[in-house]
Amino acid sequence: MIGTEVGLHRVLEPAGVLPQAALRLDPDPRIRPDEVRIRVERLNLDAASYRQLHTAHGGDPGAVRREVLRIIGERGKMHNPVTGSGGMLVGVVDEAGPDSPLGLKPGDRVATLVSLTLTPLAVDDGLARWDGRSEQIPASGHAILFARSIAAVLPDDLPVPLALSVMDVCGAPALTGRVVAGLRDPVVAVLGGAGKSGSLSLAAARRAGAARTIGLVPTQDEERRLAATGLADRVVRADARDPIAVAAALGEPADVTVVCVDVPGCEHGAILATAPGGTVVFFSMATSFSAAALGAEGLAADVTMLVGNGYVPGHAELALELFRDVQGVRSLFTARAGHDSAE
Amino acid sequence: MIGTEVGLHRVLEPAGVLPQAALRLDPDPRIRPDEVRIRVERLNLDAASYRQLHTAHGGDPGAVRREVLRIIGERGKMHNPVTGSGGMLVGVVDEAGPDSPLGLKPGDRVATLVSLTLTPLAVDDGLARWDGRSEQIPASGHAILFARSIAAVLPDDLPVPLALSVMDVCGAPALTGRVVAGLRDPVVAVLGGAGKSGSLSLAAARRAGAARTIGLVPTQDEERRLAATGLADRVVRADARDPIAVAAALGEPADVTVVCVDVPGCEHGAILATAPGGTVVFFSMATSFSAAALGAEGLAADVTMLVGNGYVPGHAELALELFRDVQGVRSLFTARAGHDSAE
Repeated sequence: MIGTEVGLHRVLEPAGVLPQAALRLDPDPRIRPDEVRIRVERLNLDAASYRQLHTAHGGDPGAVRREVLRIIGERGKMHNPVTGSGGMLVGVVDEAGPDSPLGLKPGDRVATLVSLTLTPLAVDDGLARWDGRSEQIPASGHAILFARSIAAVLPDDLPVPLALSVMDVCGAPALTGRVVAGLRDPVVAVLGGAGKSGSLSLAAARRAGAARTIGLVPTQDEERRLAATGLADRVVRADARDPIAVAAALGEPADVTVVCVDVPGCEHGAILATAPGGTVVFFSMATSFSAAALGAEGLAADVTMLVGNGYVPGHAELALELFRDVQGVRSLFTARAGHDSAE
Repeated sequence: MIGTEVGLHRVLEPAGVLPQAALRLDPDPRIRPDEVRIRVERLNLDAASYRQLHTAHGGDPGAVRREVLRIIGERGKMHNPVTGSGGMLVGVVDEAGPDSPLGLKPGDRVATLVSLTLTPLAVDDGLARWDGRSEQIPASGHAILFARSIAAVLPDDLPVPLALSVMDVCGAPALTGRVVAGLRDPVVAVLGGAGKSGSLSLAAARRAGAARTIGLVPTQDEERRLAATGLADRVVRADARDPIAVAAALGEPADVTVVCVDVPGCEHGAILATAPGGTVVFFSMATSFSAAALGAEGLAADVTMLVGNGYVPGHAELALELFRDVQGVRSLFTARAGHDSAE
């Protein structure tokens, strides 16, 4: 029955919607035969969600923590009602139902690759070990995986927070690679090229055969850091929310434009930067559907616009492989570990 | 200079954004050498916008009219702040600047094919001839087209309201046709198949080589009407917001699923209805980007998701051609003319 496979039985309100669309889920720790229960060790909020919480509470870490606790308690999942986004978690398999198709066994340390917005979750430590200052949250509690979920066993060769932060954005390089591989010698521009999903997307584009890669960043500091990695053939600087500035900074139309900037208002710049017949891939959860659709129409832009699907088969493996193989990606991720801000 | 081409000089607030993203535009009737001024005869609100206004004002036609007037007066464009959407207009070319590339001359009766959300607009009759009961608004005033706009001269063989309502949704059949033509014998499902964009998309899918077309509708009445047209090989009935019901009603996974239902919450049903490796095309302005992105991830669905771009070269011509050639499309459009509701 398709309903239980996707967790319909855990939806408390409103009836009949899938778990991601639900207002409230039931995080009952007792599992069905096709479910898996995870002992939670760490939550990783998505960048847009953390940024919204941080801004809404004026950067007060205690208030941010209380708000996250309130959301989880009320909704039975970490689903930011403002951004509509969640994140992922790491934990250890506690119990795997006999009919679960996920191939997990008790004791496996895993990361969930489905969004927290649809994962039943309860915490039991008041998030006391979290300082509220970053999107990575040490936590204790439990979460439920359905039959049709995705979880990856964590690699032995990387620290957990690092593996998690790579897998968190693994959909972006996988889809970028797929789009680029389907074209002949494309010019690929990545808006937000110095971020996590951006740097992996640059590496994926080059590996998939891009003729030239361009990374666009907002600040001189990021410009310097991205240039130092050699991940992009060119690094340019502009505010991604300023369409004219984006087009001017790139200087040439891109065949593929990848949007990895987690702030609202980047749709028009991406469209204006893209050549007729080209493709825009939107990965930011801050993307507005209507701004993209009407923006392309308003600019008479014949471009293909993709909603960045977080799932592409093999995405976690590809992202970890790029991380291990490409020094520039590693150095950017390591540098970011010391920063407050998300993405 | 790219700025004036796309109307940057008409943006009053905030500075630097494109007209579609602006809070306020300047509808000054004096045109630049590359602009065109239109004498407005009729506005056609988009379906999602009209529905929201109608619902928000409890169906009170006077209140809906006052709200539309307020929006146009405040923003210098008909840009619904809740739905983010607009519509299109019909009028007669009043003055065409000597440098305009649109090929229009005074006296041409045209429809604008760029959204009202980015078209400078002023009305001077208080919309007195509009009863507030449908999305087609008789109006007097003026509007401005930029160099990079799209306007089509209205055909002689169709009444203006009919031509307008066909061209209003012409992006949907054009993109559907393009996607279907790129595949081999695909099964194509259209959610909202009895509506304007839905019926044209069904006709376009069949013409582009679909192996089988399925129209999904919400009511018995629409089921009967769509079945009578022969536009779809199968007609099925389900609430498009109920993912499990949609998948069950279709009975087979679609290679291409086209979403033409202008209510929120149809993302998950469309994703669940689509075969692995298939494509979902979202045309409804009620689509939520994050619901689509996270829904596909949560369902571990390897599907390509397209933002329905309102612009595909030749879209108006194709839609009018389908309308003229396909009796079933004509009969659905004609039947709709007697209805209140939009889409």
